[in-house]
Amino acid sequence: MLESTHIQALTQIVGKDNCHTDKAHLLAYCYDATRERYEPDAIVYPRDEAEVSAILRYCNTHKITIVPRGAGSGFTGGALPSSGGVVLSLEKHFNAILEIDEKNLIARVQPGVVNKIFQNEVEKRGLFYPPDPASQDYSTLGGNVSENAGGMRAAKYGITKDYVLALRAVLPNGDIIRAGKKTIKDVAGYNIAGILIASEGTLAVITELTLKLIPKPKHKRSAMGVFASIEDAMNAVYRSMASGITPVAMEFLDQLSIQAVEERFHKGLPKDAGAILITQVDGDLPEVLESDLSLLQARFMENGCTKFVVAKDSKEEEDLWFARRNVSQSITIYGKKKLNEDITVPRSRLPELLTRIQEMSEKYGFKIPCFGHTGDGNVHTNVMVPNPEDKDELARGYACIEEIFAIAVELEGTLSGEHGIGLSKAPFMHLAFTQEEMNLFKAIKRAFDPNNILNPGKMGL
Amino acid sequence: MLESTHIQALTQIVGKDNCHTDKAHLLAYCYDATRERYEPDAIVYPRDEAEVSAILRYCNTHKITIVPRGAGSGFTGGALPSSGGVVLSLEKHFNAILEIDEKNLIARVQPGVVNKIFQNEVEKRGLFYPPDPASQDYSTLGGNVSENAGGMRAAKYGITKDYVLALRAVLPNGDIIRAGKKTIKDVAGYNIAGILIASEGTLAVITELTLKLIPKPKHKRSAMGVFASIEDAMNAVYRSMASGITPVAMEFLDQLSIQAVEERFHKGLPKDAGAILITQVDGDLPEVLESDLSLLQARFMENGCTKFVVAKDSKEEEDLWFARRNVSQSITIYGKKKLNEDITVPRSRLPELLTRIQEMSEKYGFKIPCFGHTGDGNVHTNVMVPNPEDKDELARGYACIEEIFAIAVELEGTLSGEHGIGLSKAPFMHLAFTQEEMNLFKAIKRAFDPNNILNPGKMGL
Repeated sequence: MLESTHIQALTQIVGKDNCHTDKAHLLAYCYDATRERYEPDAIVYPRDEAEVSAILRYCNTHKITIVPRGAGSGFTGGALPSSGGVVLSLEKHFNAILEIDEKNLIARVQPGVVNKIFQNEVEKRGLFYPPDPASQDYSTLGGNVSENAGGMRAAKYGITKDYVLALRAVLPNGDIIRAGKKTIKDVAGYNIAGILIASEGTLAVITELTLKLIPKPKHKRSAMGVFASIEDAMNAVYRSMASGITPVAMEFLDQLSIQAVEERFHKGLPKDAGAILITQVDGDLPEVLESDLSLLQARFMENGCTKFVVAKDSKEEEDLWFARRNVSQSITIYGKKKLNEDITVPRSRLPELLTRIQEMSEKYGFKIPCFGHTGDGNVHTNVMVPNPEDKDELARGYACIEEIFAIAVELEGTLSGEHGIGLSKAPFMHLAFTQEEMNLFKAIKRAFDPNNILNPGKMGL
Repeated sequence: MLESTHIQALTQIVGKDNCHTDKAHLLAYCYDATRERYEPDAIVYPRDEAEVSAILRYCNTHKITIVPRGAGSGFTGGALPSSGGVVLSLEKHFNAILEIDEKNLIARVQPGVVNKIFQNEVEKRGLFYPPDPASQDYSTLGGNVSENAGGMRAAKYGITKDYVLALRAVLPNGDIIRAGKKTIKDVAGYNIAGILIASEGTLAVITELTLKLIPKPKHKRSAMGVFASIEDAMNAVYRSMASGITPVAMEFLDQLSIQAVEERFHKGLPKDAGAILITQVDGDLPEVLESDLSLLQARFMENGCTKFVVAKDSKEEEDLWFARRNVSQSITIYGKKKLNEDITVPRSRLPELLTRIQEMSEKYGFKIPCFGHTGDGNVHTNVMVPNPEDKDELARGYACIEEIFAIAVELEGTLSGEHGIGLSKAPFMHLAFTQEEMNLFKAIKRAFDPNNILNPGKMGL
């Protein structure tokens, strides 16, 4: 519990309409997409950067925990106030698009801007902001940067970090800093923006972002390849991309995922297929898209594709992507609790990864539907636990997940391609990092935040 | 001077053939491309990562300065042993290409591999490593990463940091760490690779790099646009790129640069032009290149281009790029000492930047030929000092450079687009960074290197 003098001090900074300790507010900020719950002691909505600075300076002096928060849509608990303290929400007063600079293909935004709103605004001007996490309709750009969010278009266009040119942030001691410039190149000083990206709100509170935009491609087309086996599909992915084609997206659904979507939405997907690949190409000239599609078809067919369907119009295109976008909610038919991970491996290791996940499914007796961004080796792996209220069963689910993490690392992969570590993957950091590496993380954390006030306990730190 | 017990200890680590203190060796490692000279006390050539670790651990215990060095081709003194101590050279035993993984479009290399040798090896396999600093024929990939080198192809393909997926490094205390994974996405833990890039050898010694490759485009074509004035040329640059064309390169030479190249090489460039733009487009389909070239021509013509010449064959293409590649050595006709900087601004500020550099030329009475990578706003600005032995004249040269740095920062630009800070720009850090920002840099430096043994005195730290 936070002493009332602290509440008064915070209220003085942000005004009484922007500091709350009532139950309704505390409940509204106690959760994220993990569905874990931790109640904070207070919520503050700073109105500007100076107030963020004043809050941090005050909390640093009094060693009060601060948890920065965007939309709270993260999958690993990064925005959860797991040690109580003050939630610093940027959603209310930091949601302005400050500038869309069409001369330089650059935008300046506040961190609380919702990803999709930003995408729509830049697309009106013929520009393009590619990072498209599944949460794009509600997640914020500040949250995207703090987790280094990916998305379907990463296969061609990269991830959030590839679009952050510069930022403003407030350090735990209240110091306001800028990092990077409104230029494509900048090698003066340490790459502070680079270390803040994916730091999960543990090092600083981002107050402004300068983002790179690109010209919006004039045309796009989508296609689906049907495969008898998951191995064939995974071979088709890496061999297509190794042959020199770079599709915008190269997504897959395994058999369980296909069947779940069909059961729920009846979109006419091939329920007996081992896997499908859904892919998209884009460009300014129709000839380029034709060429890429025919090359993709050839590579797919060489690797056991039984059917290659190109969407003929926007309706067919929409149907294809509907299946992909709705798979996550559909697979809940397999179990009440979804232990959902986003391991990533080099693309050529995908066939082995999927085979070994299948072995884990048999070993532990859980269904493990998989889908995701195979174009960059990122597989959303969902261990479905039918009766999570049974503690033994749930423990077996976690043991299964831990073994899958170890397999990913063994295949030269990572614990997380886009969701981050937060709380939920913190127990597995030892699988991926040595003691020396953890020591370095801790030294960096101390350099920014010697009093450990900012989002403590996350990332296993 | 290093005590002989230290020399013996280092010799014991690397063997007597790999530790040198004779005058010839010390002289060979006292310089870089700045032509400043600082003699080290010893040179060591570690044979493997374990030896790098042993050297650092020993030097850390005994607080001995270590300066990591690749080819010593930097423009800002980053590899100079300005406080004496031990030069740790990676050129002799760290020059292997360890793996070119064609399945995943990824390579693993040691840091002493020369950029161009690596480019050639991957291109033999139909792959492409775009970063092409002007020093590519002799600079090493480790040096490129430590300075975050750019190059001509950055306009389309980005810079070194965009190609570093992972690395191995040794910390000042001797700890060996890995950072990043052999995957396109990895958000587990802090982005250590991101902070080591451009850290100029002040935080760790890189011992291995995992680099992203892309498919090599099948075709490329080049063209030159001639402009009556530099302002017209700069407007053409940013308006072309804002209109949605992304050429591989968009380079410029101003009138002084054109005239210098002509005087030396007689390539038939237009000596009375205010500026020329040399540009290149690439792609897999000839139609794309045709389309891009005609769009570029249209944008150029709208902005005062008086002549647009497309290279008809590889000979004409080679001639165009010859002029660009040889401008740096040609402009030495304007003065014995070249105060050479690489300021970078948002592209739309290029017209104003070039106008104001011209004003500085008139104010200080120096010729200031400019050329460079306008496609990303990066202008190589050369204050030519005819009589540097005249101390007043040289001081005026530095005053002029300082004023130009301040103009770049005022135009939302940076002190350095690709050369780094090192020693030569350290006095100007206060123009670009606040005390709070410098404090943060120093805290990060301390987190990695509490005894300040690694490349001390660089970057104004």
